Amino acid sequence: MQRIVVINPNSLQAVTDGLAVALARFRVPGGPEIACQTLKNGPPGIETQAHVDGVTEKLLAHVADNAEARAADVLVIACFSDPGVHALREVVRVPVLGIAESSYLSAAALGERIGVIAILARSIPRHRRQQRLLGLHERIAAEQPLELGVAELANEERTWSRLVTLGTRLREEHAAQSVILGCAGMARYRERLEDTLGVPVIDPTQAAVGIALGLLLARQVATSKRIAA
Amino acid sequence: MQRIVVINPNSLQAVTDGLAVALARFRVPGGPEIACQTLKNGPPGIETQAHVDGVTEKLLAHVADNAEARAADVLVIACFSDPGVHALREVVRVPVLGIAESSYLSAAALGERIGVIAILARSIPRHRRQQRLLGLHERIAAEQPLELGVAELANEERTWSRLVTLGTRLREEHAAQSVILGCAGMARYRERLEDTLGVPVIDPTQAAVGIALGLLLARQVATSKRIAA
Amino acid sequence: MQRIVVINPNSLQAVTDGLAVALARFRVPGGPEIACQTLKNGPPGIETQAHVDGVTEKLLAHVADNAEARAADVLVIACFSDPGVHALREVVRVPVLGIAESSYLSAAALGERIGVIAILARSIPRHRRQQRLLGLHERIAAEQPLELGVAELANEERTWSRLVTLGTRLREEHAAQSVILGCAGMARYRERLEDTLGVPVIDPTQAAVGIALGLLLARQVATSKRIAA
Amino acid sequence: MQRIVVINPNSLQAVTDGLAVALARFRVPGGPEIACQTLKNGPPGIETQAHVDGVTEKLLAHVADNAEARAADVLVIACFSDPGVHALREVVRVPVLGIAESSYLSAAALGERIGVIAILARSIPRHRRQQRLLGLHERIAAEQPLELGVAELANEERTWSRLVTLGTRLREEHAAQSVILGCAGMARYRERLEDTLGVPVIDPTQAAVGIALGLLLARQVATSKRIAA
Amino acid sequence: MQRIVVINPNSLQAVTDGLAVALARFRVPGGPEIACQTLKNGPPGIETQAHVDGVTEKLLAHVADNAEARAADVLVIACFSDPGVHALREVVRVPVLGIAESSYLSAAALGERIGVIAILARSIPRHRRQQRLLGLHERIAAEQPLELGVAELANEERTWSRLVTLGTRLREEHAAQSVILGCAGMARYRERLEDTLGVPVIDPTQAAVGIALGLLLARQVATSKRIAA
Amino acid sequence: MQRIVVINPNSLQAVTDGLAVALARFRVPGGPEIACQTLKNGPPGIETQAHVDGVTEKLLAHVADNAEARAADVLVIACFSDPGVHALREVVRVPVLGIAESSYLSAAALGERIGVIAILARSIPRHRRQQRLLGLHERIAAEQPLELGVAELANEERTWSRLVTLGTRLREEHAAQSVILGCAGMARYRERLEDTLGVPVIDPTQAAVGIALGLLLARQVATSKRIAA
Repeated sequence: MQRIVVINPNSLQAVTDGLAVALARFRVPGGPEIACQTLKNGPPGIETQAHVDGVTEKLLAHVADNAEARAADVLVIACFSDPGVHALREVVRVPVLGIAESSYLSAAALGERIGVIAILARSIPRHRRQQRLLGLHERIAAEQPLELGVAELANEERTWSRLVTLGTRLREEHAAQSVILGCAGMARYRERLEDTLGVPVIDPTQAAVGIALGLLLARQVATSKRIAA
Repeated sequence: MQRIVVINPNSLQAVTDGLAVALARFRVPGGPEIACQTLKNGPPGIETQAHVDGVTEKLLAHVADNAEARAADVLVIACFSDPGVHALREVVRVPVLGIAESSYLSAAALGERIGVIAILARSIPRHRRQQRLLGLHERIAAEQPLELGVAELANEERTWSRLVTLGTRLREEHAAQSVILGCAGMARYRERLEDTLGVPVIDPTQAAVGIALGLLLARQVATSKRIAA
Repeated sequence: MQRIVVINPNSLQAVTDGLAVALARFRVPGGPEIACQTLKNGPPGIETQAHVDGVTEKLLAHVADNAEARAADVLVIACFSDPGVHALREVVRVPVLGIAESSYLSAAALGERIGVIAILARSIPRHRRQQRLLGLHERIAAEQPLELGVAELANEERTWSRLVTLGTRLREEHAAQSVILGCAGMARYRERLEDTLGVPVIDPTQAAVGIALGLLLARQVATSKRIAA
Repeated sequence: MQRIVVINPNSLQAVTDGLAVALARFRVPGGPEIACQTLKNGPPGIETQAHVDGVTEKLLAHVADNAEARAADVLVIACFSDPGVHALREVVRVPVLGIAESSYLSAAALGERIGVIAILARSIPRHRRQQRLLGLHERIAAEQPLELGVAELANEERTWSRLVTLGTRLREEHAAQSVILGCAGMARYRERLEDTLGVPVIDPTQAAVGIALGLLLARQVATSKRIAA
Repeated sequence: MQRIVVINPNSLQAVTDGLAVALARFRVPGGPEIACQTLKNGPPGIETQAHVDGVTEKLLAHVADNAEARAADVLVIACFSDPGVHALREVVRVPVLGIAESSYLSAAALGERIGVIAILARSIPRHRRQQRLLGLHERIAAEQPLELGVAELANEERTWSRLVTLGTRLREEHAAQSVILGCAGMARYRERLEDTLGVPVIDPTQAAVGIALGLLLARQVATSKRIAA
Repeated sequence: MQRIVVINPNSLQAVTDGLAVALARFRVPGGPEIACQTLKNGPPGIETQAHVDGVTEKLLAHVADNAEARAADVLVIACFSDPGVHALREVVRVPVLGIAESSYLSAAALGERIGVIAILARSIPRHRRQQRLLGLHERIAAEQPLELGVAELANEERTWSRLVTLGTRLREEHAAQSVILGCAGMARYRERLEDTLGVPVIDPTQAAVGIALGLLLARQVATSKRIAA
């Protein structure tokens, strides 16, 4: 039995539960199991570069200690800052997918220009480094921040209205041909926003798990467990 | 019922049959149907830029005339030169995936440096244009041609031996962290080569169908049929 | 006797006639003959990627069948989408010039930043791919569409007024040091617009034929006919 | 009467005479006059960046003082280091073409990958800066130096043999689709080398004068003299 | 005794005196001597590419003739157009630092996005060439000109007010994380502007002398004099 | 009193002591104090991406808790993988310099092409990401690994001989105009290697402290302490 292990690197079980809901449709009969795990000793949110870097060691320990993660055939790190992805790739022999990288690459498969909606303006410089490192910075039409506080984000109508405003601006003013929801927790708006905007809207975790599923289906049998000691 | 339609743009039914075998594992219960079609009036092989361009019109006509293609939720064009992909994107409202683009993007999700094995040396300039257009040219470690004649390609042991030689060279001398099989028809060597080289080996059609599957599973219900008149 | 063959890949003889007028001044005594041909079975206009790709096969057939084209010393494809150019280069042994490539390269010879006036906004993504493929995307100051309907384009004063508006904006707001007329059919505005704007204005077909003329004058005698069977 | 003024920025009249021979074929009846001038107070050769920079002031003075240059419709600076080109563009209102820029751009119009033959290895870093500044560095297949001393350069058979060796290497090992003779004084080998290699060989001064001729033929009448005071 | 020789390539002793004041703090006990020299036969200001190129020869003569310059351990050319820097590097064996290059590189060490304040709009194309040549053009957030006349520049309050306006705009609208004063003569505003904007403000000459000082302190003893004949 | 705090992020006091020796010459009378600190709870060496990321949290805690670090005017992180640099920049208001970034930028100030000597081949992909992120990847001539085991590295003659071999190859075969010692612990070879190779050799920690010293000397008085709570 193959298994995709999706690790939410923040400590909020509610976020993991949300991922599980968004990923339920990727659990296909006969296909790989999809386990969603919470990094219990992670920070409650990953909002700074310090959070990003600080999570790596805990992720590595988690993958070494957790039997399910150790047996994973693909690891997905479910945070739009892709924490620990390069570090895990050095020690683990199975594919390690970052959801930001996966969403940029999926968007690039659909058309020339990519729009991004960030939660906070202060994350944009960090995202810009990722885009340049990936090599796709020329393909980014623009990145716009929701810039909503916690209370506003909890207000679904307020959030929705802002998503539509930004998505429309990305499509109209910046000629974006797809829009990435730049966060692990906005999957519930994806389909509705795609229908409203008329261009593909990408949820990063779904993008990564889609790629993971493709990698595993390409193998006829589960690979032997390959995570290094 | 969602449907991925994979179109082999050359006229050889045997190639389409080979694709169907390679893609069988992507037909998951409850998931989208995967139909493999032959462009019957396509050329017997796509080896020149003239073939690439010449196929577009036939592909568009096929998609307009064929009920199954017209009802597709994702179209995959199964040729490593990605013929007709940009043209289809202008007229069709569902995602159109080229297998070359999809394989470069999948490889980029797995690691820094990408190796490519081409069939013929004379295709490499064409591939290089694709890599630059995609924006991932800095990520290509090297591209090496099999440069085998038809008779030699039919000889599986000869082909296998050459694949191992080139794959090893890409990994050792060019530090490739993944290897793309730069052709729609080498899927049967994929898994064995991956096991031999110890780095991910990517079959382009599987890469594209993997991405397509991910896009469709992300939708709860089949989209209304959206191909333009 | 050397010969430049300029092929208008759309079927409108009036467009070819316009090209012939714009190119008359390149017919120098003792220099190469300049033949303007119409691709009679081409589409009436080339406005989509499907048109671009679809023209290749017809262009190749035309070049193979037409004695004058087969005897060309340079081929110029007179459409700003450069249809068939890469395909022709693979089979023909004489230089094949695309008018878009030629105009970007000529503009780059004149100064740092290049402005482009497109006919339609929806062509800009296609042009952007050409610019990136050529490697000169960093040199493009901006591209602006006329966005005039057929009736308005037929109105010379309306078209002229819009050209001046866009050209001035490219020069003033985007610091363009030259302006390309991004279409095969606006040569008659070139000189007047150049005088009005005070920066070089480039007609793509003239740019390509200028380069072609230079290539042929560099040869002391006509080359033996070199188009491959 | 339109006029292209080609200025050899070194003081050797023999070099200017060679240019005049190479450019004779660009003097077409009814076309622009082509005047070849020697910068009499220039250095005997331009081999260092100091020579390159040092020539600018003299070039500007020459253009201001010389009636023929002042009346030029296009200025061509005939040295592969393009001395004074940016400076002249700031003060002169007619097009100023550098022969290195012109040759790179002409080569780019003919195919993907460009080979360059330099005279001396120590010029290659300077050329590399030009290539990056132009934006075409990704298109350079390789640059190889003749690295011949003055006596050897005077020996035509020795020079020819070396040109064939390097040109063949550029075409075979580096997949160059055109070859630039990276010097203002090798025009006499151009045609023979092109015939031997079977790929276009570009003489920089001919490339620039070809572009200049094209620019002027595009104008129906001679422009009023436009060189600033 | 090690020595940094800073050459003001314009003829204004007042500018050199200003540099000496700005650099006084880099004269550390036991550290290298810092000599500020005026290129007496330079132009009164360097405002055009002609000035830039024209200064090279005089700089080379100055360095060859002036005992102090000839004995320099590092040469700094104190003009934001970096005149003569590449030429000097070819003939002098000690490091030659351009203040523009040095300021871009120092800014890049401090954060992702760099703002630049130019004196005049017409210098910006020249600066843009430098930025692309250096390879840091993707890091430039924006460049804005003071665009003040001589009388206004002499008015410190007018200049200061304009610096604050532009600096604030670079930080707020263009997300600049540092600001370069793009001129050799604005050091006296540096600290005050840095305190006002709250992001590092870089004076180019100080940046270059800082790098020079670092290079020399890294050596335990003065190098033997190494300027070539 | 201004202070540069150099933090060795590995736990080896001997390495810190070596840094202090290499930096002694940067302690100039009247200039900033240079404190070298050991991150006592760091790993004994930083050899993997996991080490790199894992150090960030400890570095942040160290800077928050250590009075001297908290009072720093510039922080230098003395490891060639630049751990924690981006994270520190988000929370600390003083400049934070990474020694890898600083050495690439210093090398870029000295000439076109930069050679790098790594300790281990497996660090090169990590370095390549840094080079691309910085934007200077086009300037890297080549990177070569010492690939010596611990015992061999302790053997100074063996290490020296290998450094000369690699440095010579970088200069001769790859046209490197400077060489970076890609590690925090090889300063003692710097000057001797520079003398042997005849091109600048850069020790990363010295490069960073040189830049830091320049930044601080540019300020007339110590800035108020600005590290955020």
